[in-house]
Amino acid sequence: MIHKQIGLALALASLFSPLAMGVLPLRGNNTNPVSADGSASLAQPALAPAKHPCLMLTPDGVDSIRTNLGKAPLFDAALADTKASLEKVLNDPPDVPVPKDASGPTQQRHARNESEMRNAGFLYQVTGDSRYAAFVKSRLESYAALYPTLGVHPASKENSPGRLFWQPLNEANWLVDVSQAYDCIYNTLTPEERSRFETNIFRPMVQFISEVHGKEFNIMHNHATWFVSAVGMAGYVMGDETIVKKALYGSKMDGSAGFFRQMEELFSPDGYYCEGPYYARYALMPFFIFAEVIQNNQPELKVFERHDQILKKSLFALLQQTDSDGNFFPLNDSMKEMNFRSGSVIFPLNEAYARYGHDPSLLSVVLSEGRVSLDLAGQIVALGLTATPNPPPFPYASVEYSDGPDGSGGGLGILRSGLGKYLSVAVLKYTSLGMGHGHYDKLALEYYDQGREILTDYGSVRFVNVEQKYGGRYLPENNSYAKQTIAHNTVVVDESSHYRGNYNAAKALHSDRGFFYAKDPDFQVMSATDTTAVPGVAMRRTVAMVRDKVLDHPVLLDVFLLSSEKEHLYDYPFHFMGQFMESNLQLTPHLGEQHPLGEVNGYQHLWVESEGAMKEHGESLSFTWLDGNRYYTITSAADPSTRVAFTRTGANDPNFNLRHEPAMIMRQKATNHVFASAIEPHGSFDGSKESTSGSSPVIRSVTVLASTKEGTVVRVIGERKIQWTVLIANDSPDPATKHSVKAGEETFSWDGPAKIIKK
Amino acid sequence: MIHKQIGLALALASLFSPLAMGVLPLRGNNTNPVSADGSASLAQPALAPAKHPCLMLTPDGVDSIRTNLGKAPLFDAALADTKASLEKVLNDPPDVPVPKDASGPTQQRHARNESEMRNAGFLYQVTGDSRYAAFVKSRLESYAALYPTLGVHPASKENSPGRLFWQPLNEANWLVDVSQAYDCIYNTLTPEERSRFETNIFRPMVQFISEVHGKEFNIMHNHATWFVSAVGMAGYVMGDETIVKKALYGSKMDGSAGFFRQMEELFSPDGYYCEGPYYARYALMPFFIFAEVIQNNQPELKVFERHDQILKKSLFALLQQTDSDGNFFPLNDSMKEMNFRSGSVIFPLNEAYARYGHDPSLLSVVLSEGRVSLDLAGQIVALGLTATPNPPPFPYASVEYSDGPDGSGGGLGILRSGLGKYLSVAVLKYTSLGMGHGHYDKLALEYYDQGREILTDYGSVRFVNVEQKYGGRYLPENNSYAKQTIAHNTVVVDESSHYRGNYNAAKALHSDRGFFYAKDPDFQVMSATDTTAVPGVAMRRTVAMVRDKVLDHPVLLDVFLLSSEKEHLYDYPFHFMGQFMESNLQLTPHLGEQHPLGEVNGYQHLWVESEGAMKEHGESLSFTWLDGNRYYTITSAADPSTRVAFTRTGANDPNFNLRHEPAMIMRQKATNHVFASAIEPHGSFDGSKESTSGSSPVIRSVTVLASTKEGTVVRVIGERKIQWTVLIANDSPDPATKHSVKAGEETFSWDGPAKIIKK
Repeated sequence: MIHKQIGLALALASLFSPLAMGVLPLRGNNTNPVSADGSASLAQPALAPAKHPCLMLTPDGVDSIRTNLGKAPLFDAALADTKASLEKVLNDPPDVPVPKDASGPTQQRHARNESEMRNAGFLYQVTGDSRYAAFVKSRLESYAALYPTLGVHPASKENSPGRLFWQPLNEANWLVDVSQAYDCIYNTLTPEERSRFETNIFRPMVQFISEVHGKEFNIMHNHATWFVSAVGMAGYVMGDETIVKKALYGSKMDGSAGFFRQMEELFSPDGYYCEGPYYARYALMPFFIFAEVIQNNQPELKVFERHDQILKKSLFALLQQTDSDGNFFPLNDSMKEMNFRSGSVIFPLNEAYARYGHDPSLLSVVLSEGRVSLDLAGQIVALGLTATPNPPPFPYASVEYSDGPDGSGGGLGILRSGLGKYLSVAVLKYTSLGMGHGHYDKLALEYYDQGREILTDYGSVRFVNVEQKYGGRYLPENNSYAKQTIAHNTVVVDESSHYRGNYNAAKALHSDRGFFYAKDPDFQVMSATDTTAVPGVAMRRTVAMVRDKVLDHPVLLDVFLLSSEKEHLYDYPFHFMGQFMESNLQLTPHLGEQHPLGEVNGYQHLWVESEGAMKEHGESLSFTWLDGNRYYTITSAADPSTRVAFTRTGANDPNFNLRHEPAMIMRQKATNHVFASAIEPHGSFDGSKESTSGSSPVIRSVTVLASTKEGTVVRVIGERKIQWTVLIANDSPDPATKHSVKAGEETFSWDGPAKIIKK
Repeated sequence: MIHKQIGLALALASLFSPLAMGVLPLRGNNTNPVSADGSASLAQPALAPAKHPCLMLTPDGVDSIRTNLGKAPLFDAALADTKASLEKVLNDPPDVPVPKDASGPTQQRHARNESEMRNAGFLYQVTGDSRYAAFVKSRLESYAALYPTLGVHPASKENSPGRLFWQPLNEANWLVDVSQAYDCIYNTLTPEERSRFETNIFRPMVQFISEVHGKEFNIMHNHATWFVSAVGMAGYVMGDETIVKKALYGSKMDGSAGFFRQMEELFSPDGYYCEGPYYARYALMPFFIFAEVIQNNQPELKVFERHDQILKKSLFALLQQTDSDGNFFPLNDSMKEMNFRSGSVIFPLNEAYARYGHDPSLLSVVLSEGRVSLDLAGQIVALGLTATPNPPPFPYASVEYSDGPDGSGGGLGILRSGLGKYLSVAVLKYTSLGMGHGHYDKLALEYYDQGREILTDYGSVRFVNVEQKYGGRYLPENNSYAKQTIAHNTVVVDESSHYRGNYNAAKALHSDRGFFYAKDPDFQVMSATDTTAVPGVAMRRTVAMVRDKVLDHPVLLDVFLLSSEKEHLYDYPFHFMGQFMESNLQLTPHLGEQHPLGEVNGYQHLWVESEGAMKEHGESLSFTWLDGNRYYTITSAADPSTRVAFTRTGANDPNFNLRHEPAMIMRQKATNHVFASAIEPHGSFDGSKESTSGSSPVIRSVTVLASTKEGTVVRVIGERKIQWTVLIANDSPDPATKHSVKAGEETFSWDGPAKIIKK
């Protein structure tokens, strides 16, 4: 599915208008039409004809923008840029072609039209220059002539045909922009003109989106958020109460669907968006746009306060899911190039700043973005930056997010240590599947250091909008590799993906939160379990970030517990970035012939470059690589039955769709097994100075002393007198529960879910 | 061979002392002891006991540094840093171990000692704090006790054993630093102490370097430059005229070797250093250090003026051989991480600024380096930056360098177009071999754009100073792959490297300059020939950088002419960086099994990922990839007999020493053949905006219309009405010569070596 970009500059109506114009009080003075359970009250507000503009802009908002022109450089730059680029086309006749293609010239033309119309409408309001109004009007005339003649789009998406575009999602995007353009020039039009535009464009498009595609309109999905926002905005601009009600409460107008329901269903109570950050970035746009429109028309609905300020939480959660350079964690289908400088983050961020107390820590993100949105919120942000040119950094933290509408659908754990470019980040994924873009990667781990990916998730196999790569759509290898379990840093059982890669099996299930403690900066720890991904196999992964004064950097400890009554083949992969330096494995390199690791489930895409096993008893596996300016060593509990393969993606890739990235995969045949590893950053490498130091790890062994139903005991030994004993509860995560595990002669007793003893 | 780093901060003597102290006038008042042919005059200067310091520092220089303290922030920072780091060890007892290892603790200890002693000596002069003098003295005492006891170093380099270090090169590095330290505290010592240090350290070390290793001392090589500099500096500090003479004029003191001879032999007349930029960076250090010492002691020798200011030329040539981010072109053995921010560039750059007219364009490089050297030149540069905080950019230009002492040994062509990050750079290598670190890559091409490598040279297979990688030395794959012809963007004949990879065959031979014209910014062109690399095969490569108003970026045209009486297999590789997007080839991907392209000469390291051929007559080969934010397409003359392999390095690499990089290799069986290609940057890709445009090339075909002894005619056709006819003379490069070539019905006539006709 191709997600079209909305024009970067989106309008935002006045924040200085506590009572929006043209909104009648609710019948019976009911100030909150939605009950606590989210269903709509029977009493609905009636909409009187609004004063225009009434969507993202209001008359007061326009006044405010005009008053502050010249005072907020980033906003003034956005205004000047938009003026300049619009000036180039302002005298062009409308180009409103009959739709033909899905990502070709006609589609691009309609997308440009919507953006130009939105901008022209905005500029008309801000400057009063009638040329802008005429520009919008001329296009509306053309669309009013074209739209009624359209049937099904000739290059329609199979299941969900569009009319003006290949899919109705783009139609909704278009309507979000063009309803704003219409709103901005509304007062310049005669009643006959308005009637013509509404009859020929807005009403049929509303009908198309909300009725022809009524099923999609009422689901809980980011597409439906675009749908209800578009329809609701058309409803407000036309003053049509029923249309607005359907947008807010679903087609049945009973709260079973619609915008408010989506606010509750698509986010966890602490703001995690169900599909993960890459799609959150896309979903937050309509959430914030339509919320602003609702606020301007029905402030009594208190949309920004709803669900415990869920929109604010969602924005902060999105930002927390980025590395120190602002790149989103590549959970589920996602592109690695995507970051918080994306156009679609700018508006929600600006809006959150404007609507939620002008939090100065958001300004540092704005600085990194280097631009603001072309609307009132953008101006408010830009004024904020003028007043606070050196804002505090964004408060990156260790934080856990629950998943699911009620927070019971697993979650996402993020541990952080350090600051700025010295930030280490570990991400443990124990969410639900995350809809159709979800990956089969329960308990997957990602790890960042030096602002770089160290242990990485492949992301998606896709080149967005690149015509040569299947029109920019997801490529076949996205299903055959990127979604499969082996493409992630988590255990694969019997070479089969979690849920056997079956969407229907996976979609209702999730991992479970175990515990999450980040208060002790020397021992932050998170733990999660899963019993759903592989029938008969229980998994618990515990990841700790350990600081020690004898070490320059925090060490990641990873303890992956597998329990089963039957014997299985467990594959424990590390998708590392960088260059192999050394290992203590007995390896057989595949020098002159290479084959894939397997036939299916993603294994067919992994060339085996080298394979082998541990040489001796009593030694931990040690593997060192170089990534950026630092060395990394995995020291992992192992014995001669541990097999290892070094692989690289690229097999069975006829069209060169994959990147070629290495992995180290440990294999163990067992019923119950514990993979326990220390991932240690060490030393430094500076090629420009030709200097290097500390290329050997400090940690020398990791041993599982014991693992019972009650707990797991892991010992880490290293030079500089390192001896850590890590105790992990496998039963109750309650902080007061006592645990006791016998290991050989020794008995380890502790309180609470996890503890480290340093000797 | 491991090149040890000299301490970053190297002292530099006064520029304000036109007549250095303690130097007697030449006997007979001969102001130039070296005749025009480089041999020494029989009249030699006698050295009187010098006033100290007399090497890099002089009493006047010290005064100047003291006077300007606090006025040059970058210099003050360097001083403060050095003070702070020395303070930590100032009270430590000397640690002067018996040497054991080649890159382990004892070697590192001696290297640290030399750097700390140099810095302490410098700080003593600048601050007068006697603790620094005591620090140096205590170390000299320890070395005076140790050095006479040493025999051959226990981990010596096979052919060239050291004493204090594993190789005498490091011994010379040590002496360069420690003679400065001694010089700085000379006046604090008693005659007995001086005698002890000179007898036990300096004289035996001079004898070791210049006599035991007399053969190496007298060769023309960067090692010998270090040797003569070290010996000469010891000579000056001890006031020993004979030692100095040997350093300047070789062991025979007749000008057949020594420093002045090296200045003539190791650079071409326009400053190209024979080994290429990576080793130039290392060689320029002793050239500039010893030149400064000579200037301070024997200004009448006019060292900085010698050989038409060759040292200045060498520094500018070094900087021209960098990409827009300052990375050296990876010619011959070289590390890609190395750039002009390297510590070893700082001193020569600062010195060149101070000694050659304070050229402000050098200051922009200093800004990028962010630091200056801890010496008088560093302070002068830092004062320059205070006065000129926004210096002009370094004047990157299209420029040709000759190779060889008299400029007749081939050369290097560099074409540039654009500015800053929009700079496109093409590099054509037609030099001599470049000694032991040379690669077999006659007429190799490199290409940069967007500040990125687009068509790349692998560089070296080495991880400098990384213990795990063969002690940081060159790895076996450096010989088996990186030096081989197929690792470069040039034609391989019959799967055998140039000169059959034989050093002795290659070292005396070179390619030849053809022509180089960079005056027309729309058609810059360079051409070179080779008849030595493959007996019986004559090669001419012509590379043009073409701008056209209908194109956003310059296009590279590459015309590679091969002539032979016998049939050969010609392989024409493009080592591209980035991701395959599309080609019009009929390809058979190797999906589930991969083999190397060949058995030897580097081919054994190339996995064949896909192979195929052109489908039809009348079409040019088209291959598009994505690198950074831009697409690149190679459009190349081809027919159904053209075979193509897409390869990736990594085969037969048991220890994971290679990076895994792709190449596209065109193969043609022929006697005479012309490979003609356009390399076109186009469109844009921005993953963060999910926007892309222009992913298809504008150029659609490249055809060789004719190729005769007189000339080659190539036609390039593209959309936007592009029709270029490129005419290249194959006979005389004389600008006045007329050429005429018949192609089918048409006859093309032109003057001069190359011409483009745009229609």
